[in-house]
Amino acid sequence: MTYRLWYWPSIQGRGEFVRLALEAGGIAYTDCAREQGAKALMANLGKHEEAFAPPYLELEDGAVAQVANILFYLGEVHDLAPADQKWRLNALQLTIADLVAEVHNVHHPVAVSDYYEDQKAEAARAAKGFREERIPKFLGHFEDAVRGDWVAGERWSYVDTSLFQVIAGLRYMFPQRMATVEGDYPKLIALHDRVAALPGIAAYLQSDRRIAFNTEGIFRHYPELDAA
Amino acid sequence: MTYRLWYWPSIQGRGEFVRLALEAGGIAYTDCAREQGAKALMANLGKHEEAFAPPYLELEDGAVAQVANILFYLGEVHDLAPADQKWRLNALQLTIADLVAEVHNVHHPVAVSDYYEDQKAEAARAAKGFREERIPKFLGHFEDAVRGDWVAGERWSYVDTSLFQVIAGLRYMFPQRMATVEGDYPKLIALHDRVAALPGIAAYLQSDRRIAFNTEGIFRHYPELDAA
Repeated sequence: MTYRLWYWPSIQGRGEFVRLALEAGGIAYTDCAREQGAKALMANLGKHEEAFAPPYLELEDGAVAQVANILFYLGEVHDLAPADQKWRLNALQLTIADLVAEVHNVHHPVAVSDYYEDQKAEAARAAKGFREERIPKFLGHFEDAVRGDWVAGERWSYVDTSLFQVIAGLRYMFPQRMATVEGDYPKLIALHDRVAALPGIAAYLQSDRRIAFNTEGIFRHYPELDAA
Repeated sequence: MTYRLWYWPSIQGRGEFVRLALEAGGIAYTDCAREQGAKALMANLGKHEEAFAPPYLELEDGAVAQVANILFYLGEVHDLAPADQKWRLNALQLTIADLVAEVHNVHHPVAVSDYYEDQKAEAARAAKGFREERIPKFLGHFEDAVRGDWVAGERWSYVDTSLFQVIAGLRYMFPQRMATVEGDYPKLIALHDRVAALPGIAAYLQSDRRIAFNTEGIFRHYPELDAA
């Protein structure tokens, strides 16, 4: 079966965590809105009461929505995570989701539906707290979770591909800050490089399926929000 | 086995979603920090690399962290959710988690670690957007998810106890706004009342185990943030 993934066609965003797991696992999927456009994405959402928002994965009947849920599902069905660590890995993925929500909140602190340009002063304040307090707290937690080469120990799981994206995203969004703190998280940085070298991921990153980071996604580079 | 739940002892907060499922299911647990205090809570957190923050459930070995993960776990082990709907229910619970994060963001838009008093102007702006746009969007989604008496159809699940808490929390936080919009969500309000009448929940709500809503928790009543 080829999965039908639905997500915004012009950003990495939350959908990227799903794309990376599918690509690393060599699992066939169609990135539907990249073929059919954003209008089709929103029209299709109405068919699935399970889904509050993209991304979601369409199955033969119904859909699986919410990033951590999709990854838990893929982990179980395609063995992308050791079953005896499934609760631990889901907890870690949910903590990554918390980080992602806080990252979005940095550039949209006051209103999800307003433009960044209308909340720049508040974003500057939010960015300072995020850079100085939250980045070390989250990365320290994830550093402690690496057991050997991978989070699960001897084999990669969807949490590793997600942590790759966290590091890549934070480097794009906060290049100065990350240059300052990266040295504190050697296991996490080595894990990022190990994920980038997985055959499925190496091929994906070279392909046009990997959308470049941009200021419409979750991780956004606004130079005024960065500092060492 | 008696579960050992660890969460802040003086608020409902995120821990309440776990407490409600345990109480409704008649599952034995100790609310450890209510006996040992907040200092013990933080000291104990250091023992469990799985847990980024409270709440977490201590098992014989290790811990299960993150509200939606704890509920998924309890659902599987104690049959608090029909197995054939597990991905759908987890997706709904994760959308409840998104709502809870946005609720917290209303009174802490700029910095998690600053006081509400230091971000009141921004909170007023955030509250307006949340009241007018997000409450109808989320409640409409949950209203559509009710299938008969319960979300899963013929029996209650942890998503029902969580939706009870969402309605109770929003009523406390935004009494004026909820009075205006509640009529649009008859299935959700009926479900709230049905959960309140479950024997385990009815007994819990009468007990001193149910902490009252207050302005230290997630749902906070600041009259200046409410409007019809």
